Amino acid sequence: MTEAVAAARRSRITPEREAELYEAVLDLLREVGYDALTMDAVAARTRSSKATLYRQWGGKAELVAKAVRHSKPGGSADEVDTGSLRGDLHALTLRSDDCEMEQNSALMRGLAMAVHGNPDLLRAFRDHLIEPEMAEFRRVLQRAIDRGEVRADNPAIDYVMHMMIGGFAARSLIDEQPPTQAFLLSYIDAVVLPALGATTS
Amino acid sequence: MTEAVAAARRSRITPEREAELYEAVLDLLREVGYDALTMDAVAARTRSSKATLYRQWGGKAELVAKAVRHSKPGGSADEVDTGSLRGDLHALTLRSDDCEMEQNSALMRGLAMAVHGNPDLLRAFRDHLIEPEMAEFRRVLQRAIDRGEVRADNPAIDYVMHMMIGGFAARSLIDEQPPTQAFLLSYIDAVVLPALGATTS
Repeated sequence: MTEAVAAARRSRITPEREAELYEAVLDLLREVGYDALTMDAVAARTRSSKATLYRQWGGKAELVAKAVRHSKPGGSADEVDTGSLRGDLHALTLRSDDCEMEQNSALMRGLAMAVHGNPDLLRAFRDHLIEPEMAEFRRVLQRAIDRGEVRADNPAIDYVMHMMIGGFAARSLIDEQPPTQAFLLSYIDAVVLPALGATTS
Repeated sequence: MTEAVAAARRSRITPEREAELYEAVLDLLREVGYDALTMDAVAARTRSSKATLYRQWGGKAELVAKAVRHSKPGGSADEVDTGSLRGDLHALTLRSDDCEMEQNSALMRGLAMAVHGNPDLLRAFRDHLIEPEMAEFRRVLQRAIDRGEVRADNPAIDYVMHMMIGGFAARSLIDEQPPTQAFLLSYIDAVVLPALGATTS
């Protein structure tokens, strides 16, 4: 489906109604998890018809991925550009407060589990969640390269998302706590910037 | 339970029988996952009594964590000490071939999912899987500090496991493939060694 067609389909409902639907999907996701979440339950909770849901979103995977995306900060309106790589990475981190980060981390973890064995969800997860985040990191890194802060051939450039996901995912396993702003800022300064050969102060 | 008591209890079965039991537990884990795995199924598959299993391992969480630990390379007999941090990290990576790494990664992912909401499993997972790996990394890093390769106050030292787990976990999400030796060696050279300020060649 092209973006234009998708926009035309989405235009049948108002942004307010769309936000309300996404909230209901996230509530259900937190309550029962991805596998047990049904389009019937979404339809009942939001007093919509299943036909409408399928017409607007194509299916459960895309609806869930877009609902999670909708709950996250970001998008072109929030473009971060502070003039330094450290400033940009810190600003991206500070867009979510600790409470949002904990909720978001629980949602992402639930989805990351469910993608195994769910090819539709894996595709939607990548298209609507991983890829937009990677695009944002690429823009931030490109500006750092253009400013001469990071060498264009630094091999760590390809691994920025791996490093960041590691900070998020390992935090709960090793430290038994959700990622916080303070932890991520410290991790960016200790790991991400030095690996990129960028200035850390 | 102290190590001595645990050893005395374990001594009632032979190492061969123990290995056989662990293999059966891993097979069941791959077939049904942690949540659906029952001690009844383990007892049936291994022709043991449930009483024996509980006496030897205390419960499902510890049995599963020890079975996974048993399948991984490592332990004091395999102590890695090549004389350089890069050599040691590469040698640790090369202990598992790509096929073992893929199987191991699937098992660890399954357990990492199941620990949420399973405090017993989280404890066993940390005690028998995360902590021994961290201890090994700490020994490798301490030798690098003693040799003057890494500064003792480098803040990335606390994040080595986060970086490594990130490489493993993000690989399947971002690159849609299991971690391979080639990927991990490149990741160590591009990310882990530069963050630690250690030499990369």
